Amino acid sequence: MKIVTTIEELRHARGELSNSVGFVPTMGALHNGHLSLIQKSTAQNDHTIVSVFVNPTQFLAGEDFETYPKRTQADIKICELAGVDILFMPNAEAMYGACEPSIIAPSTKAYILEGLARPGHFDGVLRVVLKLFNLTKPYRAYFGKKDAQQLYLIQNMVKTLFLDLEIVPCEIVREDDGLALSSRNVYLNAHERQEALLLSKSLKVASRALMGKERDCEIIKAEMLEVLSPLHVEYVEILNRDFDTIPSIELGNCIILVCAKVGTTRLIDNLWI
Amino acid sequence: MKIVTTIEELRHARGELSNSVGFVPTMGALHNGHLSLIQKSTAQNDHTIVSVFVNPTQFLAGEDFETYPKRTQADIKICELAGVDILFMPNAEAMYGACEPSIIAPSTKAYILEGLARPGHFDGVLRVVLKLFNLTKPYRAYFGKKDAQQLYLIQNMVKTLFLDLEIVPCEIVREDDGLALSSRNVYLNAHERQEALLLSKSLKVASRALMGKERDCEIIKAEMLEVLSPLHVEYVEILNRDFDTIPSIELGNCIILVCAKVGTTRLIDNLWI
Repeated sequence: MKIVTTIEELRHARGELSNSVGFVPTMGALHNGHLSLIQKSTAQNDHTIVSVFVNPTQFLAGEDFETYPKRTQADIKICELAGVDILFMPNAEAMYGACEPSIIAPSTKAYILEGLARPGHFDGVLRVVLKLFNLTKPYRAYFGKKDAQQLYLIQNMVKTLFLDLEIVPCEIVREDDGLALSSRNVYLNAHERQEALLLSKSLKVASRALMGKERDCEIIKAEMLEVLSPLHVEYVEILNRDFDTIPSIELGNCIILVCAKVGTTRLIDNLWI
Repeated sequence: MKIVTTIEELRHARGELSNSVGFVPTMGALHNGHLSLIQKSTAQNDHTIVSVFVNPTQFLAGEDFETYPKRTQADIKICELAGVDILFMPNAEAMYGACEPSIIAPSTKAYILEGLARPGHFDGVLRVVLKLFNLTKPYRAYFGKKDAQQLYLIQNMVKTLFLDLEIVPCEIVREDDGLALSSRNVYLNAHERQEALLLSKSLKVASRALMGKERDCEIIKAEMLEVLSPLHVEYVEILNRDFDTIPSIELGNCIILVCAKVGTTRLIDNLWI
């Protein structure tokens, strides 16, 4: 595995890869969720590139940019064992110049849900992902369904900017007790770790209601909110897969999304139905 | 020559081209300036793609989007005779969706000069050019020096978004009497056509001052403004090639830019020194 930190090294190393290339962009602190993306990429492509970059432009002032978990040596080991060809670990100076264009995510879809709590977050996400796509020129790029809104906006960017690559959505990986994996789970203390289960539990309640033929979004949301009542809920939303609100469930075209604060940690989870 | 109008046709036709591909994006109404770009592309590449698209997002309300010169049959003939492989003539519906990211040009360089008179113009230019680059995947793309600020901002975008292509700046093509070619010159009546010569004349005056060892930007600008006094001057500016203002000329790193209204037609011209 080649570990590269500069644009020039990456371009050179990418130039040496032939046939299909898969790309997994990450912010490091890799967990089994990331690993599942990497494994899918190595299975589907001749070569795999992983990036580890805590992207400053997607953090708002006062967020955890400075304290975001860093586990560089473990990340390297995980990528090596997973058969990654190139691990790209740039610094912010390599990725950004003083004078450059910005990417503004479409406001109707990027300033709701996550984007309402974190205005500008997705602008930063699209900006860095576009740069990384241009550098790594992947055939396929892998994103987790856990960041459902991010996944939607990246798919939207690929389609509307005519990028020639395939976005592969990957299933959410969970702990045995249901908690969706997240690099930010390390922020939770023992008590909060228990409370955090209410997010996945609320989705199970929604799932049970659906199995009982309930289709009314407001009724399902009310049941979820009851489960979530001990937490500070930011949103519970049921949308179609274009991120439009809908009055009733259309099976096969919906996402149920939940965001709540557990202690000071914002957690998100969702269910694709 | 293949004439294609849809994204799918273009992608298919582009996929059939091997080796180097040059790309010349235009808004049609092709003149000898465009032809010089096309000829440079056919000389330097195995294949050449030309686009003709009057891009709505780079026109401001009240500008000449609706009346911009259209000469489709002549454009096709010119491209055919010049040995173009693919002529891409999309409509706005093919190029833009209802929900998509925007590109915002860097404000310090995109909201001065042309961008001051046409705020948002360069956002639209970068947006369409980025899309066209993603579709045509050129090795080289050709832009005229006449739109100096556009050329700078596109070079800046290519560099900072890490696009893997070369921008080839092409010399300004002029009428025998000095008028820089522009599709908008057709807007000029006989009297205005004569007055329009003052732009290139002011640049000649600047050139003469430089040959006489004058290096002070303010003095040179004052001489130019005297020549231009019969016109409604929008700006006379001397910048380095990063579009920063400078107090005195650095030979080999400067552009002298002029913009004036002749009747109701805004004309621009410039000199790279």
